Amino acid sequence: MLISSLQNPAIKNIIKLSKNRERQQQHLFVIEGARELSLALQSNYRVEAVYVCREMFEKTKYPDVLNTLPDNIIFDITPAVFEKVAYRENSDGIVTLAKPKQHTLSDLKLSRNPFIIILESVEKPGNLGAILRTADAAAVDAVIVCDPQTDLYNPNVVRSSVGGIFTVQTAICTSEDAIAWLKANKIASYAAELQAAEFYQNIDFTQPSAIVMGTEAEGLTDFWLKNATKRIKIPMQGKIDSLNVSVSTAVLTFEAMRQRDI
Amino acid sequence: MLISSLQNPAIKNIIKLSKNRERQQQHLFVIEGARELSLALQSNYRVEAVYVCREMFEKTKYPDVLNTLPDNIIFDITPAVFEKVAYRENSDGIVTLAKPKQHTLSDLKLSRNPFIIILESVEKPGNLGAILRTADAAAVDAVIVCDPQTDLYNPNVVRSSVGGIFTVQTAICTSEDAIAWLKANKIASYAAELQAAEFYQNIDFTQPSAIVMGTEAEGLTDFWLKNATKRIKIPMQGKIDSLNVSVSTAVLTFEAMRQRDI
Repeated sequence: MLISSLQNPAIKNIIKLSKNRERQQQHLFVIEGARELSLALQSNYRVEAVYVCREMFEKTKYPDVLNTLPDNIIFDITPAVFEKVAYRENSDGIVTLAKPKQHTLSDLKLSRNPFIIILESVEKPGNLGAILRTADAAAVDAVIVCDPQTDLYNPNVVRSSVGGIFTVQTAICTSEDAIAWLKANKIASYAAELQAAEFYQNIDFTQPSAIVMGTEAEGLTDFWLKNATKRIKIPMQGKIDSLNVSVSTAVLTFEAMRQRDI
Repeated sequence: MLISSLQNPAIKNIIKLSKNRERQQQHLFVIEGARELSLALQSNYRVEAVYVCREMFEKTKYPDVLNTLPDNIIFDITPAVFEKVAYRENSDGIVTLAKPKQHTLSDLKLSRNPFIIILESVEKPGNLGAILRTADAAAVDAVIVCDPQTDLYNPNVVRSSVGGIFTVQTAICTSEDAIAWLKANKIASYAAELQAAEFYQNIDFTQPSAIVMGTEAEGLTDFWLKNATKRIKIPMQGKIDSLNVSVSTAVLTFEAMRQRDI
């Protein structure tokens, strides 16, 4: 069956799922793109429905992605319908509804020498997504989001993570729980700020470490500045006094990987 | 005089200037924000007109920014008008029209040991702006944009640079001209790609150096891969095979600064 009407209830529901409240109630979220779907399947996300615009799917680099899915959850849609439900330009014609996972601290599996990224109250979905993409590239053990102001399954997080949301272990918790967990796992924490005494280059990241990053607007709260093992900063040589949080996270993370000879 | 009409020709013109063609024809561009205006003035940009929403400007952290400007180029506008011409949330109520500068290679002033960022055909204004912000923080000598697909004065570049567009030296030129300029100035060039043999951590960035970054979608062209001094890569440990270009630029740039003890 080809869905060609914008009034189709299933199509209207995909659009509804751009709202956090609907995602919570329906326990569903939206994945755009064939590569992203492929990564979600590899990470055992449960897929409820896939909507495919065949004209656009012809140019995908991931034509096999539908092979393992049952036919009765795949629905064809017209280009006009796809355009209505898609977020991205140059999309390859696939939109998927999937079930979110639980993201608890106790589920995290750590390597022998973990490196963790902790984000306090991150606001912008694009930044959270970009950090998940970086976390994948650097193969960090986990990204922990404390007291988030954006939902992990916000479509902009999913999109800007380019699939990192599926490949990276994540946990959502309070800052208090995160500190307790770090201590229990003997992981040193480094709180990034602008005023800190110690430059990041002088930190020994070869031991179990976590970097802790604050909000775009306000930085870290006193809670983290007081409770972290150390406060660190990136040298600012210019006239603007801060970096984008996804950029500063990447600089710190790749310095850690460099020290670890990865 | 308080401008309260959305039909006011000056207001309609600000909106027109979101188009590249209008910016070229009028030789004007738009700056939003008091800090950004302050940085533009420090860098001797010529300001043609400033539109101020006083209710919003009350909360600015840069109340002095209007002091050096002649009264007859400052126009008050209502919140409704401001909302129409503004791009950002949480703006502090100032929109400025200014004259673009020329950005030629021959105007660049280099330090004794220059570090340069070269972008080939960068597409997304947000990425170009983010790179200018990073370039400010790292105090690189210049950002050179070869064969750009986005205009330097695109409102999204100006906004996401947080003023970096004013504080960082920039040049726009062809890739051929950039290579000739690098050779004339004895600057080694390092072309970033995914397949390159050499890891960036093993490069000596303490000498005069330029990193060369390709487009988000396609990476660098053969021209740069053949003509650069070396090809370098950042190790990718995950399932996603690339980093955001503003993130990879920052990782390479801050590694260079680290090596230089800055």
